[in-house]
Amino acid sequence: MVIVMAPGATDEQIGAVVDRVSGAGGEAFVSRGDTRTIVGLVGDIDRFHGLNLRALPGVAEVVRISTPFKLVSRQHHPQMSTVFVGESRVPIGPDTFTLIAGPCAVETAEQTLAAAQMAVAAGATLLRGGAFKPRSSPYAFQGLGEDGLRILADVRTETGLPVVTEVVDVADVELVAEYADMLQIGTRNAQNFTLLQAVGEIGKPVMLKRGMSSTIEEWLMAAEYIAQKGNLEVVLCERGIRTFEKATRNTLDISAVPVAHDLAHLPVVVDPSHSGGRRDLVVPLSRAAIAIGADGIIVDVHPHPDTALCDGPQALVDGDLRALATAVRQLAPLMDRSPALPTA
Amino acid sequence: MVIVMAPGATDEQIGAVVDRVSGAGGEAFVSRGDTRTIVGLVGDIDRFHGLNLRALPGVAEVVRISTPFKLVSRQHHPQMSTVFVGESRVPIGPDTFTLIAGPCAVETAEQTLAAAQMAVAAGATLLRGGAFKPRSSPYAFQGLGEDGLRILADVRTETGLPVVTEVVDVADVELVAEYADMLQIGTRNAQNFTLLQAVGEIGKPVMLKRGMSSTIEEWLMAAEYIAQKGNLEVVLCERGIRTFEKATRNTLDISAVPVAHDLAHLPVVVDPSHSGGRRDLVVPLSRAAIAIGADGIIVDVHPHPDTALCDGPQALVDGDLRALATAVRQLAPLMDRSPALPTA
Amino acid sequence: MVIVMAPGATDEQIGAVVDRVSGAGGEAFVSRGDTRTIVGLVGDIDRFHGLNLRALPGVAEVVRISTPFKLVSRQHHPQMSTVFVGESRVPIGPDTFTLIAGPCAVETAEQTLAAAQMAVAAGATLLRGGAFKPRSSPYAFQGLGEDGLRILADVRTETGLPVVTEVVDVADVELVAEYADMLQIGTRNAQNFTLLQAVGEIGKPVMLKRGMSSTIEEWLMAAEYIAQKGNLEVVLCERGIRTFEKATRNTLDISAVPVAHDLAHLPVVVDPSHSGGRRDLVVPLSRAAIAIGADGIIVDVHPHPDTALCDGPQALVDGDLRALATAVRQLAPLMDRSPALPTA
Amino acid sequence: MVIVMAPGATDEQIGAVVDRVSGAGGEAFVSRGDTRTIVGLVGDIDRFHGLNLRALPGVAEVVRISTPFKLVSRQHHPQMSTVFVGESRVPIGPDTFTLIAGPCAVETAEQTLAAAQMAVAAGATLLRGGAFKPRSSPYAFQGLGEDGLRILADVRTETGLPVVTEVVDVADVELVAEYADMLQIGTRNAQNFTLLQAVGEIGKPVMLKRGMSSTIEEWLMAAEYIAQKGNLEVVLCERGIRTFEKATRNTLDISAVPVAHDLAHLPVVVDPSHSGGRRDLVVPLSRAAIAIGADGIIVDVHPHPDTALCDGPQALVDGDLRALATAVRQLAPLMDRSPALPTA
Repeated sequence: MVIVMAPGATDEQIGAVVDRVSGAGGEAFVSRGDTRTIVGLVGDIDRFHGLNLRALPGVAEVVRISTPFKLVSRQHHPQMSTVFVGESRVPIGPDTFTLIAGPCAVETAEQTLAAAQMAVAAGATLLRGGAFKPRSSPYAFQGLGEDGLRILADVRTETGLPVVTEVVDVADVELVAEYADMLQIGTRNAQNFTLLQAVGEIGKPVMLKRGMSSTIEEWLMAAEYIAQKGNLEVVLCERGIRTFEKATRNTLDISAVPVAHDLAHLPVVVDPSHSGGRRDLVVPLSRAAIAIGADGIIVDVHPHPDTALCDGPQALVDGDLRALATAVRQLAPLMDRSPALPTA
Repeated sequence: MVIVMAPGATDEQIGAVVDRVSGAGGEAFVSRGDTRTIVGLVGDIDRFHGLNLRALPGVAEVVRISTPFKLVSRQHHPQMSTVFVGESRVPIGPDTFTLIAGPCAVETAEQTLAAAQMAVAAGATLLRGGAFKPRSSPYAFQGLGEDGLRILADVRTETGLPVVTEVVDVADVELVAEYADMLQIGTRNAQNFTLLQAVGEIGKPVMLKRGMSSTIEEWLMAAEYIAQKGNLEVVLCERGIRTFEKATRNTLDISAVPVAHDLAHLPVVVDPSHSGGRRDLVVPLSRAAIAIGADGIIVDVHPHPDTALCDGPQALVDGDLRALATAVRQLAPLMDRSPALPTA
Repeated sequence: MVIVMAPGATDEQIGAVVDRVSGAGGEAFVSRGDTRTIVGLVGDIDRFHGLNLRALPGVAEVVRISTPFKLVSRQHHPQMSTVFVGESRVPIGPDTFTLIAGPCAVETAEQTLAAAQMAVAAGATLLRGGAFKPRSSPYAFQGLGEDGLRILADVRTETGLPVVTEVVDVADVELVAEYADMLQIGTRNAQNFTLLQAVGEIGKPVMLKRGMSSTIEEWLMAAEYIAQKGNLEVVLCERGIRTFEKATRNTLDISAVPVAHDLAHLPVVVDPSHSGGRRDLVVPLSRAAIAIGADGIIVDVHPHPDTALCDGPQALVDGDLRALATAVRQLAPLMDRSPALPTA
Repeated sequence: MVIVMAPGATDEQIGAVVDRVSGAGGEAFVSRGDTRTIVGLVGDIDRFHGLNLRALPGVAEVVRISTPFKLVSRQHHPQMSTVFVGESRVPIGPDTFTLIAGPCAVETAEQTLAAAQMAVAAGATLLRGGAFKPRSSPYAFQGLGEDGLRILADVRTETGLPVVTEVVDVADVELVAEYADMLQIGTRNAQNFTLLQAVGEIGKPVMLKRGMSSTIEEWLMAAEYIAQKGNLEVVLCERGIRTFEKATRNTLDISAVPVAHDLAHLPVVVDPSHSGGRRDLVVPLSRAAIAIGADGIIVDVHPHPDTALCDGPQALVDGDLRALATAVRQLAPLMDRSPALPTA
């Protein structure tokens, strides 16, 4: 940590910074420049945080130089992790490419099964589907709740696909975990810390979507909240950030894939459906995701997108799925990745 | 609602749009241009939402022309609302200017009382203070929890100031409501819909912070979630949005005050402490907030900001508070606003 | 300047950084932490820039701790500057509040004169008006060019108001300077460095609009480009930045006024017309600008906004101007500012 | 174009809209809803723009439903264009993948030649290099000017690579065009309309970088400015947009490639060097660019990046170039693209 003093900081103010650091068992070294003095700190970063140095008189800025996350950081865990999902242990990690597909929202048993069969035909080995849907409007379809979870479980029995589904409320975590193989935290709950801690305690893999205005660092801190409760089975999901550009629903931050891989040992998947919000972009964005080194993608499919209750305009239909399957088949091997088949 | 067809849309596709609208009891009129056809819709907007028109073949865009919120909208409720807080019924509304002040986080009984006394001296009539603190890092101070709530209640007894405090978890809503006079929803929970619904049911006034990347429309939709559960005692709080500019922690969207006032009948207050994140900006931003017509401001004060456990760098100290009191005394009357004194 | 080494940086790499700094006549001190080493630099910052330290092996980050601008910085020039415009020397500075008003675009002599008379009635002492209009579309009205400049000069003769007008091309700088009292650099040219240098050489006051995605630091660097050519008669103009929020055309960054005042000795005015893009927001935003301490505002007025060739929806009409005049009359004295009357 | 009237709009106001449209030779049809009336317009869109309908009383919003650009639009020109650069006619277009490489700034003849040889070895068939460098600071290296152009021309003679170089001033357009095969418009001049028009008149291919806060529509409008002067040899270059995320210098908007391809018939290349600003991201971002269907990439290379005068931290070195060449060789054929070899 480096403390930058304001231009006119007095010796007394500089001394006060040094004293506070020493008092906390840290070591401070002072360097005086023409117009500025800086104070470097050596020791346990967490202890310094509590010192509130930025509020001391004469302090202009506090520059942090350590990563603020630990358990998810690659610094002490350079090897990339693989997360296994479901009883059949479908991997998401550095050696495979995982296609996760399914309906945005579970509407009926028939629709969910049909979507799952489309997913299987395209090569998916995990099923996505929402039973609890967070919607901007209270007047929009909010999901089937436990009925939806039951449908997902039935379709898992039928198809063998482990199930990924969102949980939006701490009170539902146990219920969702009974049915699901992987719990999803959505973008609107990316900093809902009590929910993050609750899924951290439940002991099932978690797919953590990036908040629509979360920095990559905040996203990894959210993962740290889960990890701190003992759950390191976390998969990061880049799903687009909010910017001024309105041609797409969000702006897919494709650079986030290598940046997150560089900082954390967790797998990173991409959601090309929700980032673009347009069906015609899903396959191109998927290609980009595979080529940049994502560990998987998660896409919306629907047997009848024109009657879908949620996000129909971005759901893939049969022809798109063939294009997507081709993209995975051609590109993933170039990244030294094999299809993510069950391992158990 | 207006449906814009794609350039090459066929008569069949246009017909399908008209049929679906008619089938839902709506009326559609078609207008053919040189290169485009547009279809206008008359009738109940909610019904059309379910039709998923955007996913029909040949549809390029669906333009919504009604406001998506109802209960909080001024359209059928042109008169501005006043929200009364606490047993003493301190108003937040169009005729008054309400100063809400207190520590960012409750740390000790002494610190909270001292901060409350500073607040009172500056003219505050509501006390803010956090017992549950959502923090980006799991390693940062998370608040005192129920102990903090007890301290706030004691300080209320001592000073007579009704208490505003944040709730971060559905499971805590009842507990917080037992102690607090007004529940605050923080920026990170601005789209935590289950929490919004829970505070909607508890029957106490709510201060709803804008999400750091929420549009004004999404913010009002969040208020609609609360209102829909029967609670219209909602005060909107503009606290800065996330932009590319890093000189301030967030960018205070001062225009949001008149824009929200124009769209909704709810009071709007400004948080100049968290938007700027810098003590030297709090008074200037407060002046701007009063002058643009905000119904109040909510500021951090701390007796010893350099040892504050949370956001010390932005907490006001004594000298600042005198400047703030002067600003309120001078500017609020020009806006035809009197101090927000207890009315009961 | 502080060099943060990467976690695994070798002694050799650290030594290479120290050597390069020493070779340039600077002094480097090394501090080793648990996982990181940092190198502090003392000496002439400009020389270090050329060293390209960030590209050396093992360097993770270079943290700059001096301000990158000099001539416009308050560091060596703490007193705020006043810029005088026109032969009558209308001031823009810390003791006055300057109202600049006029049509967005000069269309006809009649319209410009009528707008100027409206401006005068509202208390304006400078006339704005565009003869060269940069428009997003090549098919939109681009301004009258030199004919427009002539109209502005005639209206100046008639009303006594010095003229502020935009220049968009280096080739036009001399021409515009012949007619105008103050040259405006628009938001789209905020980083057109050759144009900035050209107006720096012409020896007339300059109004420098902030780029719609310029940080405050980049804006001040743009001012430094002008200053470096010997022209310190620069007035900064905050006109809104581009964000995700679309309820307003841009997001007025009201905090930029005190932040820029803190960093630079140049006057800062606010453009409430172009930031909001809506007539109903102009007076509220103007009130906020006065109250936060802006040195002036620049607003669009038009005798017949519904036939304006440019930005009619935001032009003030008579009733608004009375409200604006009232706001200035009431609020500016509270900021210890008198009307900006001619001083010569 | 669709006119949305405000909720309380009167019959008179609606009539005024219809009259104005009819008076301009257009046709308006009125549709009354419960709370709103909308007016659809049929006819020549450009004529309606001039009518300034948005400023009429009672008008809430004007929704444009035609694309605002024409010459660059795919609407009347569905086939994708190929731009040929230099005497040897190196193509940039739908059937090829073009690698453009070279130093960010021309520093010396030796450095430029060495960089060009690295470029050739990696498979590049066009040489980039800056002689005029727009820099945020007036104290930073600004390029060698005409000396730099001469060096580029010499290196072209030596290597056979046509030259792409930036022009920043209208006054330099002829000079630059004498030496260069393709003129580049940089991000800071993306809305410098006089410069756009000047390169539109010079009759050489243009590489148009997207402004760092330009929407895709504004970017295409900038291309329209060039096209309108008779020059359709325009290549679009996506180079990252400005967002809140600071882990990368800019946020590469990878979705812009298919979106721009969908709207315009112009080729689109990606700049992975300036978007990320980090050497370790260049190859991953290049892979994503190829896989999503970009027509080429433009990258920084430097024989000695640690002494580069400009953007050294992002310049590729030998090992990276081999990885880049491999990526192009493997991925481009999957997109049905062959290397962009000279065709003359």
